Amino acid sequence: MGIIKKIFNKSRSQEDGIFFEEMRKLLGFNPIELSHYRRAFTHRSSNKTDANGSPINYERLEFLGDAMLGSVIAAHLFNEVPTGDEGYLTKMRSKIVSREHLNELGRDLNLIKWVESKVSTQHFGENIHGNLFEAFIGAIYLDRGFPYCEKFINKKVIAPYVDIPKLEGKVISYKSLVIEWCQKEKKQFHYDVFEDNGNEGVKYFGVRLKIDGKVVAKARATSKKKAEEKASQRAYFAFQEKINKK
Amino acid sequence: MGIIKKIFNKSRSQEDGIFFEEMRKLLGFNPIELSHYRRAFTHRSSNKTDANGSPINYERLEFLGDAMLGSVIAAHLFNEVPTGDEGYLTKMRSKIVSREHLNELGRDLNLIKWVESKVSTQHFGENIHGNLFEAFIGAIYLDRGFPYCEKFINKKVIAPYVDIPKLEGKVISYKSLVIEWCQKEKKQFHYDVFEDNGNEGVKYFGVRLKIDGKVVAKARATSKKKAEEKASQRAYFAFQEKINKK
Repeated sequence: MGIIKKIFNKSRSQEDGIFFEEMRKLLGFNPIELSHYRRAFTHRSSNKTDANGSPINYERLEFLGDAMLGSVIAAHLFNEVPTGDEGYLTKMRSKIVSREHLNELGRDLNLIKWVESKVSTQHFGENIHGNLFEAFIGAIYLDRGFPYCEKFINKKVIAPYVDIPKLEGKVISYKSLVIEWCQKEKKQFHYDVFEDNGNEGVKYFGVRLKIDGKVVAKARATSKKKAEEKASQRAYFAFQEKINKK
Repeated sequence: MGIIKKIFNKSRSQEDGIFFEEMRKLLGFNPIELSHYRRAFTHRSSNKTDANGSPINYERLEFLGDAMLGSVIAAHLFNEVPTGDEGYLTKMRSKIVSREHLNELGRDLNLIKWVESKVSTQHFGENIHGNLFEAFIGAIYLDRGFPYCEKFINKKVIAPYVDIPKLEGKVISYKSLVIEWCQKEKKQFHYDVFEDNGNEGVKYFGVRLKIDGKVVAKARATSKKKAEEKASQRAYFAFQEKINKK
């Protein structure tokens, strides 16, 4: 009852209403307490403080989010790779939650779009993307608890990014697998790359992978190479049965 | 319904019944799938394997339990110390989940009692206690999920061991605080120490702290010093109001 009431609270301001809607899209479920998410986007330069004079910014949430992310990934790897020993699991997890990977995740979700800061976002280094990503997970934990962290991480991290064979180094590049298969099968392939920025500030590239003139996969990422790789991966999984048969 | 059925499953063997009862006492709630806990106590030397030939022992569970413990402690510190920044929270957590502390936790719960091994438990080093503790948390996660990990860790780790002022180094020893207070108040105190081994293999010490001839706190631990400190801490919290007034 309490939750439903909060979600449909008619007294929410228009600004809150827009933020709620944007968060709902990003999360894939309803946020309850918007203040957690606002905090997750508040940079220390905004100099906000609470009633006790304690600073309000996302730095403590990073600590919380990092822990929750580590647990969710640990549980996923534990279940997914029943033959992996402790050393393997530890190594795989640190690949998944590497600084570079977290930055990529935060950047792909374009979290920086919501940042409240007195510094221009152009002056932030790369790490802000990963920090925002961790803080956002921390906010989810405070707002909705562990199961929703799991839900979000499954959808936004594990499904699109956690590719165990690739992390194991068994697959170096899906693009090369796709090209190899096309050449064997005497199929024409073409990666159609275009800029696809929208209104988002960050530069994006779109890719359409055509095989024998038909678009078989599409992808969008912050570099041409990544977008091609993503599209190739999608094509690979779509064609996996065919490819593996050969 | 499914859970209730499993708990009251009449076809459980007598051995399972005893193990269930022991686990129930240790956990403070009902276990569902006993095999997770059995695995948490299976040392690699027992050379057990599953149907696929994969080893059955507690090593992978350590990885899982370590992650869950880290998250639960992170959330506790986040809520408990609203003024602590990221660096503070990280430092405090590593004190709580230090190898030494985990060994103490495992030893105090006497987890080694249940170990199944081809090596005599006397040949294990100190770290087995902490490893068993982590593996046990991993088993709880698999059996009952994150909320039960939280429940168990709150009861067995946080309530009795996580003492923030002490971890911050503000309180070096509760024994010295108690003694100081007694001297100021001209009270007689006496630490009554005795061996208290039970049938458990590990050496234990019991302490009764008497003030003016009355037992005010009791404790039990694996060294005299620890038992005295524990009893002092209990006395300190019991008398805290009185002590702080002075």
